[in-house]
Amino acid sequence: MAKKNGPKRCYSFGARGADGDAKQKALLGGKGANLAEMSAMGLPVPPGFTITTETCAEYLTAGRRLPAGLMAEVGRLVKRLEEDAGKRFGGDPPLLLSVRSGAAVSMPGMMDTILNLGLNDEGVEVLAAASDVRFAYDAYRRLINMFGTVVKGVAHEHFEAAFDRIKKRHRVTRDHQVPAAGMKQLCRAYAKVYARHVGAPFPQEPMAQLQQAIEAVFESWNKPSAVTYRAINEITGLTGTAVNVQTMVFGNLGPDSGTGVAFTRNPATGEDLLYGEFLVNAQGEDVVAGIRTPQPLTALADWNPAVAAELAGIRKKLERHFRDMQDVEFTIERGKLFMLQTRTGKRTGAAAVRMAVEMSEQRLINRKEALLRVPAKDVTQLLLPSFAPRDKERAQLVARGLPASPGAASGKLAFTAAEAVARAAHGEQVLLVRKDTSPEDVDGMHHAAGILTSTGGMTSHAAVVARGWGKCCVAGAKDVEIDAAKGTVRIGEHVLGRDSVLSLDGTTGEVFVGGLKTVQPEGISGHFATLMGWADKHARLKVQANADTPADARRARQLGATGVGLCRTEHMFFGDKRISAMRQMIVAETPAQRAKALRKLLPFQRRDFVGILTEMAGLPVTIRLLDPPLHEFLPHSRTAQAAVAGQLGLPSRLLQRRVASLEESNPMLGHRGCRLAISYPEILRMQVTAIAEATIACRRKKIDARPEIMIPLVSAQRELHLLRAMAAETMATVKKAEGYRGKLHIPVGTMIEIPRAALTADSIAAEADFFSFGTNDLTQLTFGFSRDDIGSFLPRYLEEGILDRDPFQSIDQHGVGEMVRTAVERGRSVKKKLRMGVCGEHGGEPRSIGFFHEIGLDYVSCSPFRVPVARLAAAQAALR
Amino acid sequence: MAKKNGPKRCYSFGARGADGDAKQKALLGGKGANLAEMSAMGLPVPPGFTITTETCAEYLTAGRRLPAGLMAEVGRLVKRLEEDAGKRFGGDPPLLLSVRSGAAVSMPGMMDTILNLGLNDEGVEVLAAASDVRFAYDAYRRLINMFGTVVKGVAHEHFEAAFDRIKKRHRVTRDHQVPAAGMKQLCRAYAKVYARHVGAPFPQEPMAQLQQAIEAVFESWNKPSAVTYRAINEITGLTGTAVNVQTMVFGNLGPDSGTGVAFTRNPATGEDLLYGEFLVNAQGEDVVAGIRTPQPLTALADWNPAVAAELAGIRKKLERHFRDMQDVEFTIERGKLFMLQTRTGKRTGAAAVRMAVEMSEQRLINRKEALLRVPAKDVTQLLLPSFAPRDKERAQLVARGLPASPGAASGKLAFTAAEAVARAAHGEQVLLVRKDTSPEDVDGMHHAAGILTSTGGMTSHAAVVARGWGKCCVAGAKDVEIDAAKGTVRIGEHVLGRDSVLSLDGTTGEVFVGGLKTVQPEGISGHFATLMGWADKHARLKVQANADTPADARRARQLGATGVGLCRTEHMFFGDKRISAMRQMIVAETPAQRAKALRKLLPFQRRDFVGILTEMAGLPVTIRLLDPPLHEFLPHSRTAQAAVAGQLGLPSRLLQRRVASLEESNPMLGHRGCRLAISYPEILRMQVTAIAEATIACRRKKIDARPEIMIPLVSAQRELHLLRAMAAETMATVKKAEGYRGKLHIPVGTMIEIPRAALTADSIAAEADFFSFGTNDLTQLTFGFSRDDIGSFLPRYLEEGILDRDPFQSIDQHGVGEMVRTAVERGRSVKKKLRMGVCGEHGGEPRSIGFFHEIGLDYVSCSPFRVPVARLAAAQAALR
Repeated sequence: MAKKNGPKRCYSFGARGADGDAKQKALLGGKGANLAEMSAMGLPVPPGFTITTETCAEYLTAGRRLPAGLMAEVGRLVKRLEEDAGKRFGGDPPLLLSVRSGAAVSMPGMMDTILNLGLNDEGVEVLAAASDVRFAYDAYRRLINMFGTVVKGVAHEHFEAAFDRIKKRHRVTRDHQVPAAGMKQLCRAYAKVYARHVGAPFPQEPMAQLQQAIEAVFESWNKPSAVTYRAINEITGLTGTAVNVQTMVFGNLGPDSGTGVAFTRNPATGEDLLYGEFLVNAQGEDVVAGIRTPQPLTALADWNPAVAAELAGIRKKLERHFRDMQDVEFTIERGKLFMLQTRTGKRTGAAAVRMAVEMSEQRLINRKEALLRVPAKDVTQLLLPSFAPRDKERAQLVARGLPASPGAASGKLAFTAAEAVARAAHGEQVLLVRKDTSPEDVDGMHHAAGILTSTGGMTSHAAVVARGWGKCCVAGAKDVEIDAAKGTVRIGEHVLGRDSVLSLDGTTGEVFVGGLKTVQPEGISGHFATLMGWADKHARLKVQANADTPADARRARQLGATGVGLCRTEHMFFGDKRISAMRQMIVAETPAQRAKALRKLLPFQRRDFVGILTEMAGLPVTIRLLDPPLHEFLPHSRTAQAAVAGQLGLPSRLLQRRVASLEESNPMLGHRGCRLAISYPEILRMQVTAIAEATIACRRKKIDARPEIMIPLVSAQRELHLLRAMAAETMATVKKAEGYRGKLHIPVGTMIEIPRAALTADSIAAEADFFSFGTNDLTQLTFGFSRDDIGSFLPRYLEEGILDRDPFQSIDQHGVGEMVRTAVERGRSVKKKLRMGVCGEHGGEPRSIGFFHEIGLDYVSCSPFRVPVARLAAAQAALR
Repeated sequence: MAKKNGPKRCYSFGARGADGDAKQKALLGGKGANLAEMSAMGLPVPPGFTITTETCAEYLTAGRRLPAGLMAEVGRLVKRLEEDAGKRFGGDPPLLLSVRSGAAVSMPGMMDTILNLGLNDEGVEVLAAASDVRFAYDAYRRLINMFGTVVKGVAHEHFEAAFDRIKKRHRVTRDHQVPAAGMKQLCRAYAKVYARHVGAPFPQEPMAQLQQAIEAVFESWNKPSAVTYRAINEITGLTGTAVNVQTMVFGNLGPDSGTGVAFTRNPATGEDLLYGEFLVNAQGEDVVAGIRTPQPLTALADWNPAVAAELAGIRKKLERHFRDMQDVEFTIERGKLFMLQTRTGKRTGAAAVRMAVEMSEQRLINRKEALLRVPAKDVTQLLLPSFAPRDKERAQLVARGLPASPGAASGKLAFTAAEAVARAAHGEQVLLVRKDTSPEDVDGMHHAAGILTSTGGMTSHAAVVARGWGKCCVAGAKDVEIDAAKGTVRIGEHVLGRDSVLSLDGTTGEVFVGGLKTVQPEGISGHFATLMGWADKHARLKVQANADTPADARRARQLGATGVGLCRTEHMFFGDKRISAMRQMIVAETPAQRAKALRKLLPFQRRDFVGILTEMAGLPVTIRLLDPPLHEFLPHSRTAQAAVAGQLGLPSRLLQRRVASLEESNPMLGHRGCRLAISYPEILRMQVTAIAEATIACRRKKIDARPEIMIPLVSAQRELHLLRAMAAETMATVKKAEGYRGKLHIPVGTMIEIPRAALTADSIAAEADFFSFGTNDLTQLTFGFSRDDIGSFLPRYLEEGILDRDPFQSIDQHGVGEMVRTAVERGRSVKKKLRMGVCGEHGGEPRSIGFFHEIGLDYVSCSPFRVPVARLAAAQAALR
């Protein structure tokens, strides 16, 4: 039905089949493409058509004007819908239409749906005559409400307040208890609300309604909340949203009607059972918006066994067809089932893992597909925090809601998104506490430690968004009364304010008063272990962990780390006795004094190393020599300096002078890393002595200790040359002093974290047994961004699209990545088999891991918690 | 005379001709090669031989042992000298020898000369019998003294004290007044001093003396002072020093003997006349060490016209032969002239320029040679500071010394090299005040603003070293009595301490009490203008200047700048009214408030730009938009904040909060450069408005204003894209508002100073009309070195040879340079003719300029004062 000389802008679907199919997501949006696909599969889809995403782009680039001819084409297609339904848009019997947005990527943030288009003051009477007065006016008030809020931006409260007045007048508390007369009054009240806030009466012309609704959908593409959502979820490259115009079917035509949402498997656990909720005598928005609390789908068979059976069949058909778990919306109009939408469903990490493994076992997909299907970052959720059972027993359980998104979190209470953002920015751990959430709240939800809502179900906005992030959420906790204006929460007799603390268990839905300690899950088992096993078979990149203590090392090993890629030694100097010796070392005025203080530190270091090497027996442990500037070990307030001076037996003045002499304008670029070892060779000698002695001690206990020494912040080959020689000399001295006769080969490598080191990697390689890319510092220096200071400008950079993503979270492949790639090539041009890895934050981030695989690194090292993510990402990189 | 199976280690020279020649400087050292050359030219050179620099390297690498067979060969050559002279080494008549060091590059720091070798208790009597008792014992005491200090490291004071006692005993004040008996006593006294401090008697065996002297010369190669001198002067790649063993001739054999040093042209002014000094009845060390003040060579003809005429002839011959100004040492022994040494003479920048031009006019050299002969950095000396004549008239002249090195300087007084280093490190401007200087003082001399000595001549150590650096020096100011122990200087009735201030005029030799304002010379004229004209004909690189004010711009233009390559706008905000508006802008809480404050700044900016554009009419002026972080404009102390808050009419608390919110951990990597313009587009709009309005105002006055806009700190193409669009929009707005009908094309370019910008220069080039490399920041980021913080480790890096030179002074070609080269290639891969230059400190440094020429930049921009340096360096780069 395209115009002869232009692009095809509208694609029909319905009982006659469809113009499009599921592959056309970019053009038709996910919803539109799947409606077409379902039509083609013969599923009962109410007929309609999709206006393409390209039309949206045309609209936006042409100064927000619909392309010429579009509405004429829409008119022709509406005519076809009229013919199919035997009804008339704005006529008798009245054809009603819905308008929904639908981009290529599902964005739960964009909810700009308008139902019941086509009704007006006249049509509602016709509809009432054809069906039921209450139903007709209920439909009309919904249209005015949605059109008012979505198209014209009238605040929902104004409609809500009018509804409350009507309910009060009729002495009822719930929407469905309002009688037909009340609904008529409500429509008049809504029309007044509309006219007052819009400054014009509600449009009576159906095609005008439709046109404005289409425009509103297009407009919603650039709403700040949608933009933020795309930014947070790193969604780029889309041209716009499609618009789905579809014949209305009604779930609110009486007790034999209803509406619901379903997942073909449980999206929280992955269990292979139909999962979802429905509401009798309701429209879809009632389920999604969480205004009424629905019944589980397990109750569907009791209400209408035929529909339940049909839905079960559709579930099988959909999974066989789409080979993935589907998230569907359906409506039963007077006993007849209609499928309104299907899409691949969002799921928790645990569910993704279980589904992938089970679908593979069910031969729906193969193992490679299974591995690729689980978003690597989501497997962290399987290691999400929970509360210790003992703590929970003792804690005061005050409410129960739905287990909307697993995990556990405690925090103070924030009542608006803005408040959550602001307080989180000040370092507070807050829970966002809301009656329900909407796209406007996305930013606040992102910054909160957890989310608690008093209304809404498992598929409410809050629940869907939180699950997507693996963030703890308890939804629909009805006993929680929130007064956002006052900033209080009442739960039974408890009245809580902004500074009160609640604890949420998103896995059970429990709400506790007070803070609870969270515990991390141990280990990997069940489907998770199966998937990780498959992953390790396919991965080429090895995964190591960053671990500074024996406990970290043990945990890393449990999570599958094949070594310690970064053991930071500085954290070892902060213990009580250690910090004092460390400070003596720093204030020392002669090498001899410094050496004396270092001798005190030596036994501590040795013990730490023995512990870590023992835990990692048989696996490499890469120990980085002292890295931070020395002033980090000294107190900065005058009073603390006085106290420390007392402990050290020094005049305060002297300590103050030393602190002052160590101050730097730009510590990131100052006297740290290997520059310290060059200024104070005693420090390097002590650390290398501790490593060598620890290794000998382990080996004498038959522990296969495999330490490696890593020199940080190298910028010139001769730094490494000098320090490597010093380390070798020290090791030889220890070996001799210990009378050790075994081989004591401890490789010495370097971090590549300074641009100059990357550029001169060929000359540096000559001195190095391995390279470990410190992509945090490399990012700081390549961009000239101080990670501590980017808060003042980076958010704007992301908003403006100057950068696609935060380069500290995911490696900047174009700039920093180019530098890494260059270093890899130059390093290997000298030593073909030079071992190379990454030990920055990026080592645990899937997109970055894909890049590291591609450029030929040997390993990544990340925090223990992210080791499973990295293992899966490494496998996916190899499979792609 | 080489050993059959080894390298030739000794090269003879003298009346019989020579084994070597002037080309063998690397092997024979400069002194040895030139002695050979002079011998071959038939000049009267006392015979001798040179032990090669390779032998020095052999000695040093073989654990400080002379190669086997060396001393045997030396013995054979001494025999030949005995035969030539008809004397015996340690016999009768006694042959005496001198030993001098001599590396490939002249190092005035290494003065380890020993004279009169071969004398002992017996030989001195023989010599006395053959000549004169006083002469013989004078020669012997000199040997003991030099051997003691140079070979055995006995402090000179011990000998000095013994001499003072003898002079007192004989009631004389000057050395030459001591009678023969006194000299005998002195020898006994020196022998005791020697034995007491060395722990062994003075060696009586002549060959043992010779061997130890040779070893001492080799040892001196690695003396800290020599190492420091090489480091400061960037002398690398040498293997060691040669040793010159030569038959002694004596300038102290009576009133018909004498010694002197001469330059074939005046080394301070370049005048084409023999220039130098001599002392009657003295040895060479008396001239060089500045212990006695010599007579000018103009007096030579009065004393011995024949010698004067011979020397004049030798001068011509030397210049024709070496085609450069020579620095010679000579001795007249009983009326006969001997040439002891020749080498290319050091000269001031002014002298270098004049000589180059005049030698070219005299056809000694061609113009290209003339251009290559002047060390580019030395031409700054022609623009050296001086005191304003008016100020000098009013100032208190307290002493006069020799104008040893031109320029002018004021400072407090430092009495030791160490003190000068320490106080300079704390930011004090100090003058180093010494009786005389020695190689140990080199570091202190380098750190002092100027040097004042109370003894010594134009060729004293202090004078030679200071001239080499273009540092102001007044030498031999006899009325200045220095008590280094007490830290006081007495000049007539003035007693001055460490915190007193003196002013030195190195061009006149005047010393003033108190500080004087220095003034910079204006313009370029005479020989200098001639040379600069030749330079501009050969240079390919254009030279622009960094200038922030109309006065700077005018000066830059006078010095030959062909544009302003960097006009920093931030300095324009520090004026009294401006800083207040600037602060209002910074504390503004809304864009409207900010815009209001910016409107106040606009007229100031416009006026500045009109001024600079007018001065540079017809030449480009590259204006960099605001670069530093905003906190630089706010006060940091609480009291200053309170005062400013008062001025701004704000609560102190608010200002404190704003200051605190702007604080950064690493300001160098923070919210600055174009990041400011992205956060606060109003700032960019104000600046671009001022530029556009200033341009229009100029053009309406028929002034050919050629501004260019430069965006700093770009790291991503989209930054530039956004800001360029904003600038274009602003220019269009101004053009319209002004009703300007002419073309208003103002190019918009970017600084490349962030590694990422260099790496992604291809994509950035698409948005840029030009690139200007900010090599200061690029060096900071490529090395991860904060220029403000390197003081704590960079000196060590240079000492240890980890870096060859300070990368902020001369560009690191291997790392930073590689980055620049990459950016040039990538930028030009997109825009073949993209204009590119440098506006960092390196733009005025000759070695860096050579590199920038080589990689194909179009221009360099440097401080006005360095423009002539850059013009010459650009020509030299093109000629090499």
